[in-house]
Amino acid sequence: MRVLAKDMVRAAGEKSGEELEVSGWVHRIRDMGGITFVVLRDRSGIMQLVFDSKPLDADGNELTLESVITAKGNASLNIKAPGGAELKVSSVRVLSRAEPDLPYQVNGNVSQFSLETILDNRMLSLRNPKIRAIFKIQATIIDAFSAYLRSRDFTEIKTSKLVGSGTEGGTELFEVEYFDRKVYLAQSPQLYKQALVAAGFERVFEVCPVYRAEKHDTPRHLNEYVSMDVEMGFIESEKDLIELEKALLSHIFEEVAKRNSAELEMWNAAVPSPEAVAKAPTIPYEETLKIVNEEAAKGKNPGSRIFDINPEAERLVCEWALREKGIDLVFVNEFPRRHRPFYTYPLNKGDGGAAATTMSFDALFRGLEITSGSRRQHDYKTLAETLPKFGLKAEDMAGYLSVFKYGCPPHGGFAIGCERLTQKILGLANVKEASLFPRDRKRVEP
Amino acid sequence: MRVLAKDMVRAAGEKSGEELEVSGWVHRIRDMGGITFVVLRDRSGIMQLVFDSKPLDADGNELTLESVITAKGNASLNIKAPGGAELKVSSVRVLSRAEPDLPYQVNGNVSQFSLETILDNRMLSLRNPKIRAIFKIQATIIDAFSAYLRSRDFTEIKTSKLVGSGTEGGTELFEVEYFDRKVYLAQSPQLYKQALVAAGFERVFEVCPVYRAEKHDTPRHLNEYVSMDVEMGFIESEKDLIELEKALLSHIFEEVAKRNSAELEMWNAAVPSPEAVAKAPTIPYEETLKIVNEEAAKGKNPGSRIFDINPEAERLVCEWALREKGIDLVFVNEFPRRHRPFYTYPLNKGDGGAAATTMSFDALFRGLEITSGSRRQHDYKTLAETLPKFGLKAEDMAGYLSVFKYGCPPHGGFAIGCERLTQKILGLANVKEASLFPRDRKRVEP
Repeated sequence: MRVLAKDMVRAAGEKSGEELEVSGWVHRIRDMGGITFVVLRDRSGIMQLVFDSKPLDADGNELTLESVITAKGNASLNIKAPGGAELKVSSVRVLSRAEPDLPYQVNGNVSQFSLETILDNRMLSLRNPKIRAIFKIQATIIDAFSAYLRSRDFTEIKTSKLVGSGTEGGTELFEVEYFDRKVYLAQSPQLYKQALVAAGFERVFEVCPVYRAEKHDTPRHLNEYVSMDVEMGFIESEKDLIELEKALLSHIFEEVAKRNSAELEMWNAAVPSPEAVAKAPTIPYEETLKIVNEEAAKGKNPGSRIFDINPEAERLVCEWALREKGIDLVFVNEFPRRHRPFYTYPLNKGDGGAAATTMSFDALFRGLEITSGSRRQHDYKTLAETLPKFGLKAEDMAGYLSVFKYGCPPHGGFAIGCERLTQKILGLANVKEASLFPRDRKRVEP
Repeated sequence: MRVLAKDMVRAAGEKSGEELEVSGWVHRIRDMGGITFVVLRDRSGIMQLVFDSKPLDADGNELTLESVITAKGNASLNIKAPGGAELKVSSVRVLSRAEPDLPYQVNGNVSQFSLETILDNRMLSLRNPKIRAIFKIQATIIDAFSAYLRSRDFTEIKTSKLVGSGTEGGTELFEVEYFDRKVYLAQSPQLYKQALVAAGFERVFEVCPVYRAEKHDTPRHLNEYVSMDVEMGFIESEKDLIELEKALLSHIFEEVAKRNSAELEMWNAAVPSPEAVAKAPTIPYEETLKIVNEEAAKGKNPGSRIFDINPEAERLVCEWALREKGIDLVFVNEFPRRHRPFYTYPLNKGDGGAAATTMSFDALFRGLEITSGSRRQHDYKTLAETLPKFGLKAEDMAGYLSVFKYGCPPHGGFAIGCERLTQKILGLANVKEASLFPRDRKRVEP
């Protein structure tokens, strides 16, 4: 019966004297002359093996780093061993011998490698426990997101990623050769979420890949990312959505704190408490601009002006909120019409003019936009009239419009960027670090 | 405070005399002269509203089917009303008026419509409670699959769907224009699952879209489907995987039975009990062929021979198992080498000849293959030698091979087709019925 690293201390106590079996990857080898210490890594952590002679495989080869082995022996407590216990090995079997020309130092310090090196050696860099920790936390985020929404009567949906046209206006789409025609990779499940709310599910969510054919390469962009999408019927305004997202983020943070304390510690990271999340302010767009300009005036370029919620503004307003409210989570609402897609609901009925604002919001966390959301226009006639103003044709959007033509409740939704939330929880410099196999303009391997 | 249809009986009892509010879609209207009965549909079910005059909106228009309304009134028990209670309406507000030219009869009997009609009117056909029920069950399947695997220490992963080449040999791939190069939509997360087991996660799962550019149109194929993928390290053979899948299916069936009894009832469907699943036989490929030929000999064409586990064989062996074992779930293992991908592990070490068999299996449920799985070859040198025999080049597969070059445990996995499992639980004639927005050669809308 195999014992995992995390259970070694307990096993050393409970099964003292019994032969135990462990399996894993050779993480580190220290040859001390007569005796050899091997740090073995499994899915749960690391443990120390002690060999009283040089460990060899059945063919007489020396152990190599990253080889996969099964060892048997007696466990004992050792306060100096990683994890607090060690196994005195009586027999070892090499299940898979690693070639000795390891091109990436798996047991090295992550911070000593460039992002390029980490991603070029992705199959090996993921073996590092600190890097693996990123994705243990990401798994918790996805589970906590889904579980919370299920508890609120949301239905999980799986919608097509192959669409006839874009929902955001047709730019930045990847083209797919689909038999004898062209289709596109979905930029978001927006239309489908709305369609399913209107179909009577009322409350839906989807965790799915989305695609943006943006050419720029920044620390905050991925060409393929995991979107955690929510849509909800019978709401009054974007404020209902902000309330939902606060509860959702609180739950996610609580679950990460509960399940991933070891992973957070590796990154010296912490998540906000539910009390702190409850204090996150909601600030209208114009007021946010005022705050960030006041903040900017205190900074290095006091004469510079910020005209938009750009990355600099996101950073400044989060700093302000941390100082003034005790949490670097901010909901900016009431974005001007010109900044939002055609389906965004106006704040004041009938107000479609240039100065018009909308029932929309972004969530900014630790200086980065992690969410965009809004109440949507659900009135068929208004939508049909709005399309031409955004350069869209009603005939191209007939499928979309039919959702609203035959009865659609007031509704809205938002999406949380899964990699961005992971990034900000851990304080990663680049969002690509939070994607198992990131795609950018140059990278489609591995 | 809104009351849902499912809570109306309780509300009629507990809040007798109080004014209640309900919201939903106008499912049916019966004008009885002086009094009008409206069946209102919400996410939880249907309920009866009683108007003592013709219901009109604020502009004096008559109610139309599928309009979304909010009504207030007093609830009372009525054994003859759908759900057992009804609301005597004192006021009504139309939130969204449906145009009266409804092109699809939402409240009709699903079996009266062809699949084409249902899919051509997808935005409306999904409003039918019986069709919606399919996807309520699908949501349970996905949740139960994920929850069970999490309880067994599997980590949820999200891997790229854009890949440089196919993992199954390069045929049947959809091409994507990716900036200045071409990539493909992933046929399965196979390589990534294996890479992450090797990276130390040991046990991973993913629920994700996969793509097959197959031109044929059959009741069992989709060009885009949801794959529920599992991969597990430190296994001995495919039998460990069959054991895992049995436990997994048992859990899924139990959760569907528990959470979706109303939906199962709409389809007159039932799921197998855990006791029945435990009895599902595992039958080697050759023996399965023998059984199906014996079964075929008793049938309409007693002279015909079956040389392969084709759809006819899948049906026959499931019928046999239901009769002989009490469950129409069969695991066929030990497939011949020639039927399986290059990465499949041989049953007898070194046996790569034409007669060789593999540590592989399919799961057949109610006459349909729902799973394919195997132990994988994890030995670097053997894999490198195997590739040319399958017409593959080691240099094209360098990324894949590097996973095994530096230590990879024995491992294997499988995938369950989410739509096929949904289809077979409910007894749907075509797998497309179990996809919210199915894609086939002709259909990419909506």
